[in-house]
Amino acid sequence: MDVAENFEKVRKEKPLVHHITNWVTIYDCANIVRAFGALPVMAHAREEVEDMTGIAGALVLNIGTLTSKLVESMVLAGKKANKKGIPVVLDAVGVGATPFRNEKAAELLEKVKIDVVKGNTSEIAALAGFEAETKGVESMGASESPVEITRELAKARKCVAVITGKEDVVSGNGKTYLVKNGHSMMGEFVGSGCMSASVIGSFAAVEKDFAAAATAALSCFGIAGELAEKNSRGPASYKNNLFDEVYSLDSEKINEMKKIELVE
Amino acid sequence: MDVAENFEKVRKEKPLVHHITNWVTIYDCANIVRAFGALPVMAHAREEVEDMTGIAGALVLNIGTLTSKLVESMVLAGKKANKKGIPVVLDAVGVGATPFRNEKAAELLEKVKIDVVKGNTSEIAALAGFEAETKGVESMGASESPVEITRELAKARKCVAVITGKEDVVSGNGKTYLVKNGHSMMGEFVGSGCMSASVIGSFAAVEKDFAAAATAALSCFGIAGELAEKNSRGPASYKNNLFDEVYSLDSEKINEMKKIELVE
Amino acid sequence: MDVAENFEKVRKEKPLVHHITNWVTIYDCANIVRAFGALPVMAHAREEVEDMTGIAGALVLNIGTLTSKLVESMVLAGKKANKKGIPVVLDAVGVGATPFRNEKAAELLEKVKIDVVKGNTSEIAALAGFEAETKGVESMGASESPVEITRELAKARKCVAVITGKEDVVSGNGKTYLVKNGHSMMGEFVGSGCMSASVIGSFAAVEKDFAAAATAALSCFGIAGELAEKNSRGPASYKNNLFDEVYSLDSEKINEMKKIELVE
Repeated sequence: MDVAENFEKVRKEKPLVHHITNWVTIYDCANIVRAFGALPVMAHAREEVEDMTGIAGALVLNIGTLTSKLVESMVLAGKKANKKGIPVVLDAVGVGATPFRNEKAAELLEKVKIDVVKGNTSEIAALAGFEAETKGVESMGASESPVEITRELAKARKCVAVITGKEDVVSGNGKTYLVKNGHSMMGEFVGSGCMSASVIGSFAAVEKDFAAAATAALSCFGIAGELAEKNSRGPASYKNNLFDEVYSLDSEKINEMKKIELVE
Repeated sequence: MDVAENFEKVRKEKPLVHHITNWVTIYDCANIVRAFGALPVMAHAREEVEDMTGIAGALVLNIGTLTSKLVESMVLAGKKANKKGIPVVLDAVGVGATPFRNEKAAELLEKVKIDVVKGNTSEIAALAGFEAETKGVESMGASESPVEITRELAKARKCVAVITGKEDVVSGNGKTYLVKNGHSMMGEFVGSGCMSASVIGSFAAVEKDFAAAATAALSCFGIAGELAEKNSRGPASYKNNLFDEVYSLDSEKINEMKKIELVE
Repeated sequence: MDVAENFEKVRKEKPLVHHITNWVTIYDCANIVRAFGALPVMAHAREEVEDMTGIAGALVLNIGTLTSKLVESMVLAGKKANKKGIPVVLDAVGVGATPFRNEKAAELLEKVKIDVVKGNTSEIAALAGFEAETKGVESMGASESPVEITRELAKARKCVAVITGKEDVVSGNGKTYLVKNGHSMMGEFVGSGCMSASVIGSFAAVEKDFAAAATAALSCFGIAGELAEKNSRGPASYKNNLFDEVYSLDSEKINEMKKIELVE
């Protein structure tokens, strides 16, 4: 898998990444896409979501602050993406925490062909039908390992399944990758999970092997996260460094630092 | 009052703090809760607010960008919190500026038992029935002093009343505290008022004496504000420092720097 | 045109700038107004927008994440502003990208007397009836030059028309100004376009010649953008510097650095 090549394609092709997302991290999701060199657009009115998705390279759905109406827009946009062959990424924020989130995530998976489903361990475990506890939007663990969980969901839904955490796990197309890039500080501020879905969307827009795209996306984001530690004094200065490092990422750094493992 | 002990309890117990809040400072509210070591969750759909409050340690309501529908969700969540004995904090943003805000704040206070009501001088004065002017979300002053105003509201509503400003005032349970921590730069960017309500919610989740919880919360936030001045060159670098200082706050700093006064 | 004088008036009069805006950059729009010394307020409920506009010095409408309901609130607020002689600024985000945005922008221009219309080249070109392509919220160019486009729209709508970009163009009252302040890094993060509309609103609140107000606003914002390059290592540190530089801007820097050209 050529991570750097995928990264360069994002920079060069500058895909439009349409988001229907939450109100908490909406800015950071847009800004991280921009830092990677792609073009973010956030639009959720039912009157325009199909048109916006129609000109986009990828669609990212994030249910962090979902409402029934917002999910209606997601379904409209998702169906349009499916018709036009535009990849759809779902960030299953908070699944497992309330019945409403479980129902709406299930509805999205039924009505839309989701190409990449992303979440933390308990969110993806809940979608895969395993026992798990989600406290708000935080994983409290699950009965199975991330590798088992993503494999199960990938098989059941014929999608790429991603769990982000200390190590990221990507399963799909019969393969499972571990991404060992990243830094613990990425979990010390709000938003890195949401941002990683937006980055996956940016890469899926330029690489049709979505397992490869997600793996490359998370590796690049994680490499920037490792570089961001330097000169950081806490989560806010770290987060600023993270954006700056994404912006100045290049193939040389990626080739030198990427840590991806194919699980047998 | 042991401020440091309350601070350590937040760090250790990591309470879930459910917010129904505004779209301007929603990220900062989540992120400051995270920096203090607690777990923020933002969720406002009527279908899930009761479930989310039901698993939370505190509920923070902020009417900064209220709509009628959002207040309906606040009432549902608030009633659930009341039933389960979960503390409710109300940030009365902009009360006094429009009749709609006055009505909706009154509705919340009638339908929900609010444990802590927080605002700037004119917002709390308006709620307490004093003459006051609010320009948008900014206090233009009031006819009475913050100590009188909070005492009156605390008595009338049987709650803890908090005015934040140069000095913070906390009245409740027959006592009034002045918190003399803080820094003028906290008023030079948007969001420190909203964030302080979120911090109060985090502390109220672990300390049942809500006047003590609010006082400890504001003292800790203010201490971080004092420490944040170092190396700041304006409101943006200052705000980053503030998050970093909250993150690296500890009992030693708190015990050394806390400035709390019991008003006779 | 005395740019510094307008800047000082914002600082001194501290006008209230009412926004009905998008959920992506809402915080930054509020915060940049605050950094310039004015008072931002964000409020969109139809029940209160007229009251809030009624006490404001300017109204800024931004359709970045528009819905039909939000545009209804914009129309209510805009009509109230017209009645009271309060300047109205429209940021035409994404016009040209979807038919919905085109319709809603046209509706706003029909129902409300807009004093300043701002956008990037393709957004303003679309409003002026020229051929143009908008990819999401990004300009992909237009058939005419920014000077021609703003002149046409200003004449057709009897408003001040503004295109922001490498050079900003302001046309109105029979004059066209080029603002040559600014820095390429302002385009490397999300939000500087939205923020510039908020800054224009802050200046329009204190200066009745709206072409002069917009020109002064963009020059000041651009000067801060030039100063912000120092010590920046990427878009995040640059953006923080930008806020800090706006905050510490003064007449001396403005008089020394302003670059405004009257187009013959």
